[in-house]
Amino acid sequence: MEFHDPPRFPRGFRCAATLCGLKKEGYDLSLFASEVPATAAAVFTRNQVPGAPIIVGRELIRAGRLQAVVVNSKVSNVGTGEEGVRRARAMGAAAAQALGIDESLVLMSSTGVIGVPLPVEKIEVALPALAESLQEDPMVGARGIMTTDTHPKALSVSAGAATITVVAKGSGMIEPNMATMLAYVFTDAEVEASALDRILRDVVDDTFNMLSVDTDTSTSDTCAVLANGLAGPVDEEVFTAALREVCVAMTETMARDGEGAHAMVRVTVTGAENGGEARVVAKSLVNSPLVKTMVFGGDPNVGRILMAVGKCFACRVDPGRIGASICGIPVLDRGVRTSFDEAAVRELLEGDPVDITVDLGLGGGSARAWGCDLTPGYIEENAAYYSS
Amino acid sequence: MEFHDPPRFPRGFRCAATLCGLKKEGYDLSLFASEVPATAAAVFTRNQVPGAPIIVGRELIRAGRLQAVVVNSKVSNVGTGEEGVRRARAMGAAAAQALGIDESLVLMSSTGVIGVPLPVEKIEVALPALAESLQEDPMVGARGIMTTDTHPKALSVSAGAATITVVAKGSGMIEPNMATMLAYVFTDAEVEASALDRILRDVVDDTFNMLSVDTDTSTSDTCAVLANGLAGPVDEEVFTAALREVCVAMTETMARDGEGAHAMVRVTVTGAENGGEARVVAKSLVNSPLVKTMVFGGDPNVGRILMAVGKCFACRVDPGRIGASICGIPVLDRGVRTSFDEAAVRELLEGDPVDITVDLGLGGGSARAWGCDLTPGYIEENAAYYSS
Repeated sequence: MEFHDPPRFPRGFRCAATLCGLKKEGYDLSLFASEVPATAAAVFTRNQVPGAPIIVGRELIRAGRLQAVVVNSKVSNVGTGEEGVRRARAMGAAAAQALGIDESLVLMSSTGVIGVPLPVEKIEVALPALAESLQEDPMVGARGIMTTDTHPKALSVSAGAATITVVAKGSGMIEPNMATMLAYVFTDAEVEASALDRILRDVVDDTFNMLSVDTDTSTSDTCAVLANGLAGPVDEEVFTAALREVCVAMTETMARDGEGAHAMVRVTVTGAENGGEARVVAKSLVNSPLVKTMVFGGDPNVGRILMAVGKCFACRVDPGRIGASICGIPVLDRGVRTSFDEAAVRELLEGDPVDITVDLGLGGGSARAWGCDLTPGYIEENAAYYSS
Repeated sequence: MEFHDPPRFPRGFRCAATLCGLKKEGYDLSLFASEVPATAAAVFTRNQVPGAPIIVGRELIRAGRLQAVVVNSKVSNVGTGEEGVRRARAMGAAAAQALGIDESLVLMSSTGVIGVPLPVEKIEVALPALAESLQEDPMVGARGIMTTDTHPKALSVSAGAATITVVAKGSGMIEPNMATMLAYVFTDAEVEASALDRILRDVVDDTFNMLSVDTDTSTSDTCAVLANGLAGPVDEEVFTAALREVCVAMTETMARDGEGAHAMVRVTVTGAENGGEARVVAKSLVNSPLVKTMVFGGDPNVGRILMAVGKCFACRVDPGRIGASICGIPVLDRGVRTSFDEAAVRELLEGDPVDITVDLGLGGGSARAWGCDLTPGYIEENAAYYSS
């Protein structure tokens, strides 16, 4: 499977972006719309202080039907109480009115600073013109949803006669449950809503949910899929495989653009007691500040891999069976550091991606997780985020 | 209760430190000894890839009796297999021989790089002279156990007629279970071994185990207590209160000296469903990179407090009841940002300590956790640690 270059929308989908005044420059509002209603599914953050759009989105998605998504950046509309919920609904209603569709068909998302009121009137004023300017390039919509992302993110791939396009943002506050990120999947495949929900959860579980930039779970995470059916039915296996591939690629794109990141870190764990424990160990490695700084420093302080495995208290671990490699070079064997070529590993740590594989030598459980190195850039970004 | 200034040892305890050649400069080997055998208790890391000294130490402590502790820095003797265990025992035996006591009475610890062999022969050569140079200042012993600590750490306090002295190191790889740290408690109080074990676990649980610098649990964490009885029995409540106070103070000393830290962050959670949930929420805040960078940036991006509470998936959280304050200034009320004085909070965030209190408004559970801000210094330190 190859990704379309440049990415393109499936039949019937268009988008637009504008600067409505939440930010000082760039884009801060995007609208995505299908020309016909689509079946839809979505997963949201597990954070217990969810944003107002999450509260409204969970209600909306029950019907399994959407036609548009409206997203603003800069202000997340989280920690804003009842008034926040009212403004989220007003944002959706304004988009629906501008598009001439029912407001139950518009999902809204907000991303940005937590705890400040959403200036929804700026969004309401901007929406009629935005709905008039819908066009074919998904990268335009990707621009309006960026926060600390260094570039807009859209990918598309074929799935039989259909196309699957993912438009996403995500750079920090990423420990998906769902990921601290927004991802919208558009397809012209015809997929029934309950199947779409099942497929989405299955794919997200192994892709976006295995991405972590900083262990902080956002209050706004959303991944929604809209299937407008204009390309007719697609074999479920073909559709699922294509969706998985494009979501893996988007996960890697986000990992590589993690706040301040200089490299994507991809951790593959095998030989775990079971799949669940493999996931825990893989996440422990991508989340360990000492593993992340080892990668940034290009310094093969590989004992930190043992530490990060050993701190998975609830998993079965036998130190004498742990093996590990960095970009294919074995660095640990039966729990002991090998006499590897340090210069070679140093060079590989400076490349991208940095692949760390760990074999626990116990059973058949395996998993993969994605993250990035930890650099002064992450701190600069987040120490100054609110004021900027 | 006041701490002794300078700190001093209880009756019968002495220590010495030297440079035996593991490091290039400074001190890398410390010996602590009592003139008579002491009752003893210890808690060790929960990391499942424990260092060789932990494996041996768990055996030794079963007898509830110790007379000396020998500690090297620079090399942790972790991930070194059976040979590592042999070298840990050799290190203890060499110290026992130098002191003329049984080797079952010597606890050994090693801290430093993981996964490289311990040059134990350098330690063996140095021990006779070290045992000859025992002296009265606990700060001397504190110097030999430092890794990335910026200063040696010892504190002492009176407990009735007895003295309690804690000598510790700890700067990074700190998420105590036990803490990524070494702490040795010396007292001349007479305390029976089983009571000592119970009191130590109780106090450590609320002090060192509530400290986190970076979520990474060391493979070498050790907290041991030696009570040589030379001051006779002390009322248990008095002893426990004094031990708690000195351990809180040492926890704060270590938090403040967290790698790269510019300030100690102290999080107090009240109103949780129960004490266990309060601990989880308090730890979530001290461990959140986005809360830590908010403190470093001096930027009152207080919505991140909501995020860090909300990602405690297994705890009861009601967003509409969450209140929070920073250094006494209320910043969140019933889940919504208050209209606080931003300039005042900015100024407080630049001070030390930074006290964050969160009230969940649900029940009677409370807890306190300690950590520090996240700065570029942490990354510099850990990106270059192994090579340095």
